Amino acid sequence: MKPLKVGLLGLGTVGGGTFTVLHRNAEEIRRRAGRSIEVAMVADLDVDKAKQLVGDTGARIVPDAREVIANPEIDVVVELIGGYGIAKTLVLEAIAAGKHVVTANKALLAVHGTEIFKAAADKGVIVAFEAAVAGGIPIIKALREGLTANQIQWVAGIINGTTNFILSEMRDKGLDFDVVLKEAQRLGYAEADPTFDIEGVDAAHKVTLMSAIAFGIPVQFDKAYVEGITKLSSVDITYAEQLGYRIKLLGITKRADKGVELRVHPSLVPAKRLIANVEGAMNAVVVQADAVGATLYYGKGAGAEPTASAVIADLVDIARLHDADPQHRVPPLAFQTSTLRDAGQELPVLPMSDIVTSYYLRIRVADEAGVLAKITGLLAGAGISIDAVLQREADEVGGEGSLQTDLIILTHDTREGDMDKALAEIQGLPTVLAPITRIRKEELN
Amino acid sequence: MKPLKVGLLGLGTVGGGTFTVLHRNAEEIRRRAGRSIEVAMVADLDVDKAKQLVGDTGARIVPDAREVIANPEIDVVVELIGGYGIAKTLVLEAIAAGKHVVTANKALLAVHGTEIFKAAADKGVIVAFEAAVAGGIPIIKALREGLTANQIQWVAGIINGTTNFILSEMRDKGLDFDVVLKEAQRLGYAEADPTFDIEGVDAAHKVTLMSAIAFGIPVQFDKAYVEGITKLSSVDITYAEQLGYRIKLLGITKRADKGVELRVHPSLVPAKRLIANVEGAMNAVVVQADAVGATLYYGKGAGAEPTASAVIADLVDIARLHDADPQHRVPPLAFQTSTLRDAGQELPVLPMSDIVTSYYLRIRVADEAGVLAKITGLLAGAGISIDAVLQREADEVGGEGSLQTDLIILTHDTREGDMDKALAEIQGLPTVLAPITRIRKEELN
Repeated sequence: MKPLKVGLLGLGTVGGGTFTVLHRNAEEIRRRAGRSIEVAMVADLDVDKAKQLVGDTGARIVPDAREVIANPEIDVVVELIGGYGIAKTLVLEAIAAGKHVVTANKALLAVHGTEIFKAAADKGVIVAFEAAVAGGIPIIKALREGLTANQIQWVAGIINGTTNFILSEMRDKGLDFDVVLKEAQRLGYAEADPTFDIEGVDAAHKVTLMSAIAFGIPVQFDKAYVEGITKLSSVDITYAEQLGYRIKLLGITKRADKGVELRVHPSLVPAKRLIANVEGAMNAVVVQADAVGATLYYGKGAGAEPTASAVIADLVDIARLHDADPQHRVPPLAFQTSTLRDAGQELPVLPMSDIVTSYYLRIRVADEAGVLAKITGLLAGAGISIDAVLQREADEVGGEGSLQTDLIILTHDTREGDMDKALAEIQGLPTVLAPITRIRKEELN
Repeated sequence: MKPLKVGLLGLGTVGGGTFTVLHRNAEEIRRRAGRSIEVAMVADLDVDKAKQLVGDTGARIVPDAREVIANPEIDVVVELIGGYGIAKTLVLEAIAAGKHVVTANKALLAVHGTEIFKAAADKGVIVAFEAAVAGGIPIIKALREGLTANQIQWVAGIINGTTNFILSEMRDKGLDFDVVLKEAQRLGYAEADPTFDIEGVDAAHKVTLMSAIAFGIPVQFDKAYVEGITKLSSVDITYAEQLGYRIKLLGITKRADKGVELRVHPSLVPAKRLIANVEGAMNAVVVQADAVGATLYYGKGAGAEPTASAVIADLVDIARLHDADPQHRVPPLAFQTSTLRDAGQELPVLPMSDIVTSYYLRIRVADEAGVLAKITGLLAGAGISIDAVLQREADEVGGEGSLQTDLIILTHDTREGDMDKALAEIQGLPTVLAPITRIRKEELN
């Protein structure tokens, strides 16, 4: 059978890894796919660098991605350029030219996925994106194909290695965020401009995709709540530890009665959960579903070859399955495109005030009689019940010799809107001496 | 599009679960599969019980499985009878009748898989068996489709919930095997005849299937080394703990230079590994592969609905993909059937004497000067290097007032044949007072 001819757009880290692995494991891949997978063309602006990597493998190198798309011999276009700009244009042009598309571009799909998947469905081509979420972990396949029997209840994942590395280091070494970020940049775990990672944007792109696949809704990155780790203090990591929790940046999407929760933020997770023990730059995703219960998927979420592993798995899928009936073969978002729920209507993404979770609160208070009673009274008045309280010994003398302390409160599940109101009242108390720290807590059970 | 018509053979625990989940989640499943999946016929000897479960769903109940196979309306036969006997006959007859087959029958496939997959390939039908390994965890899909880019180096899994439950209880409560087994039977975690579980046979069936998928070799259950947990002593669990290890029953298959290791036995695993922290009846599988590195898959390995989740995922795959070219769509063992390596020749399953691993040894010795030197000398002479030694204080007075103690030795990697020889020599020493306990140790890194 003739080879599957691939055109690679972009020969950076992931493109280079894809090229390398396709060549190193060509024989195994051919035995699995039933035909060779051959990189026939590579488009990269840096033609000389590309030539060095490609060597004498026979792949044609061009500076213009459109030459790849225009080549009738190319079966699949692999987009590894990234970003929302030219990548979007090229993906749509490749689809229009009847090419299957493989992409690792989570940003593009989380924002423009609906348009892209629609174009692909109209044209009868496959758009595959295993590499867009959690690198080499086949989590898209698990959600889209492995758990199809289930009503999925929630998905929660450590899906950004940079932030998990930073949080692991903060905990292990008791260091502050800024110090660890610099170290992470030095070691290559964080980029020179780390904003997308540390502000939670990258994780939000990924959880947006998982949300659509889990619940049969369109991708709606604009509705996601996004909070990063830049304001996390190491004192909260320490307190959490004392209470039996770790702090992780989680991407969470949950099916609630009236809609879907879609959020990224630091979260306390019980230390005994497997996912709480995922350290360093590793990724893990837990899926809770009605028939199977909880399943967890763990591995490397980034890097040249782990990401290439996912890109190539998509290519093998295309080699195996491209001739299945396009109306029924595996749909990009797990649900047949015609059955996706109307975003605004049937299953809306809920505003943060309507999400339900539990909380960790750190409140800097004057160490006076009645402070605890006053605060817990306000919480009770808002219908918020308390799971645990940790009152520290007074540790600081303020002005006029007054004593201060940290009051740590863990709550049971409550509506975030109710918590917001209660916190506004508590913040207004004269005995509350600093802005309250509030971190959400996920029991994941 | 017309429904996919399913015939269920056997309405026991998994059959009942499959029926229940297919009905409860019919709408989600239809939206994913692009067509309804309808149980049109059920074959069970206990027709009355079947009638109760099936109710007025319209499924026809018959006592004879052959009526299901003979019905031209049935697209897929789901075999949930179990065992090697009638199940084999029925699966082959269903294939001969041009039906796709879904089965949870690990025993059947591990022993007769080559014959069954050959028949299916000749007939152009799908044989799917996600439920045969690790229940609801989509590990077959991960190995067969998610990691296709990789040369897989090894797979190691906790793939029997009964034994993991027993080992967890032995460790947590310091109880002996016999006591915990009775408790497990009372709680329903172990069967009345638990032989297949506790002797490692069930795990060996499963790792045999994973081995074939990982390495592109035929299923070879007869070549697997199988050792259960019945001889494990709680004292070894305690010593292992002190040395930073847990003891787990692992199914292991590993690519070595000259062949493939295929073995099930109790194994020390570093306590810090995620898989060492998989407790109770849960399952987990680690796959080490060249591009992606280590990935781990965790979830419920048994039970009505977790197993049903896997059965139904296979049905959805068939609904989506049955019309792909049978020559190239996903092959049952990941590698195209025509490219499976010749069992005996190219990639044989190695005899245990040729496997390489490290060891935990517990040696009951007379507490005399020179004993340690003698033993370590014999190990060194066999080329076995020592990683750690734990010498206990003398704890027992034997005959004539002599003192005895346990000597615990951890070794580095060594060939099992060399270890066998060294142990025979050590066992022969007059200062060695009891049969040596030898447990293999897997660093899994």
